[in-house]
Amino acid sequence: MKNLLLTICYDGTGFSGWQRQPTVRTVQGELERELSSLCKCPIELFGTSRTDAGVHALGQRATLRGDFSIPEDRLLYAANNLLAGRKNGPGGDIRILAVERKEEGFHARYDALGKTYLYKINNAKDPDLFRRHYCYHVSEPLDLDPMREMAKRFTGEHDFRCFMSAGGQEPKTTVRHIRRISIDGTTKGDLTVEVVGNSFLYNMVRILIGTLVEAGLGKRDPEEAEAILRGKDRRLAGHTAPPYGLYLYKVHFTDDEL
Amino acid sequence: MKNLLLTICYDGTGFSGWQRQPTVRTVQGELERELSSLCKCPIELFGTSRTDAGVHALGQRATLRGDFSIPEDRLLYAANNLLAGRKNGPGGDIRILAVERKEEGFHARYDALGKTYLYKINNAKDPDLFRRHYCYHVSEPLDLDPMREMAKRFTGEHDFRCFMSAGGQEPKTTVRHIRRISIDGTTKGDLTVEVVGNSFLYNMVRILIGTLVEAGLGKRDPEEAEAILRGKDRRLAGHTAPPYGLYLYKVHFTDDEL
Repeated sequence: MKNLLLTICYDGTGFSGWQRQPTVRTVQGELERELSSLCKCPIELFGTSRTDAGVHALGQRATLRGDFSIPEDRLLYAANNLLAGRKNGPGGDIRILAVERKEEGFHARYDALGKTYLYKINNAKDPDLFRRHYCYHVSEPLDLDPMREMAKRFTGEHDFRCFMSAGGQEPKTTVRHIRRISIDGTTKGDLTVEVVGNSFLYNMVRILIGTLVEAGLGKRDPEEAEAILRGKDRRLAGHTAPPYGLYLYKVHFTDDEL
Repeated sequence: MKNLLLTICYDGTGFSGWQRQPTVRTVQGELERELSSLCKCPIELFGTSRTDAGVHALGQRATLRGDFSIPEDRLLYAANNLLAGRKNGPGGDIRILAVERKEEGFHARYDALGKTYLYKINNAKDPDLFRRHYCYHVSEPLDLDPMREMAKRFTGEHDFRCFMSAGGQEPKTTVRHIRRISIDGTTKGDLTVEVVGNSFLYNMVRILIGTLVEAGLGKRDPEEAEAILRGKDRRLAGHTAPPYGLYLYKVHFTDDEL
């Protein structure tokens, strides 16, 4: 029995998220369909992260097990050909970046020790409509200093209950460890926020970003951070930033990457 | 009777081109619907260029005439609000950039003296799936020197019959004047080709780009240019580059802009 680990890039715009669902288009659903037809047997994927509708991935990971004979490099090539769609068309919205063989028991979700997300913000008066599905447009100027100051206060191990949307499964604990939040700004008004952590609550990154944006707009003081965390109440944190600015960037399987 | 000139930006991905059609989504159709509802009277637009399905615009122009009382700045603001769609959503795929009042007889198509198109090429081994609708992915390396050499030979006044797709209206003449073709390359493999001319035949820019790409790939010699033009046969020119790399950039109403 082979156990393969895939690295997957996708544009989340046209998907109702990662997770397979009976009637809507999902990344897992599309991949399983194409891989099953290639491998001539039903393929089930186990993804590291169940990204929401509209959320993108630069490095989602997923494992699959099966008895198929097709070699890894051939699988990568053939699957990408199927996923690219019609020749001379604009290409598809999923690409497999790598296929690696792993030991029998390895699992993309249970063996992941952490993840890095990127969140892209376009901070300019007018929206760039060619990037409307790829970044969060904030038209008022953002001050990066209070954003960085507040981000520092959210870094480390905390109870992040206030940064959890209703509607997900109730987790065993709402304590999470954010290893790093870094905010890079460019002259053109583009910001990228990088968030590294062991695991994340439902919508946690998006609520973190919404709260940081409010600090950047002067609507919140960075020193509120401790009170927000202590309050353990979703209403104390900021708005949920939209899904289309969020990218699952990397999955970490070793602790030294974190 | 007011006569207004609009400057319009759109992402052509979700449209069956500019021109109004009964059953499919078009830029003209969407704009006329929203403007008619705003102005409370039927609005008919006259666009400079009938861009094809998938082709984008950074500066399409269109005139509209009517007796409506809404001031220009208010029209711009209100129309963009309607076009942006749901609040907190990713925004719409059309934006009006400017509304100007013009003299009674001014017409966006008949008074245009020229147009500038941009064509964007991503020349990298692997496609960037987040830009698949916004540039032409060419995976083999392009040599810019023969492209520039051939572009120089197409510049000026020529019979461009060989650069015309079937299916358009037969024009009175197939002689056109290309004022300039410039090719800008960046280190990341992104190319932008700028084409300035008085007017263009059906698919002329896309066939020009396809022919230049073939020169850049070493499949054609730049010196073929004269024979292609002389042959007046579509089969002598290169492939038609895809619509999603093409942007209507500027419309020129004065000769000194050309």
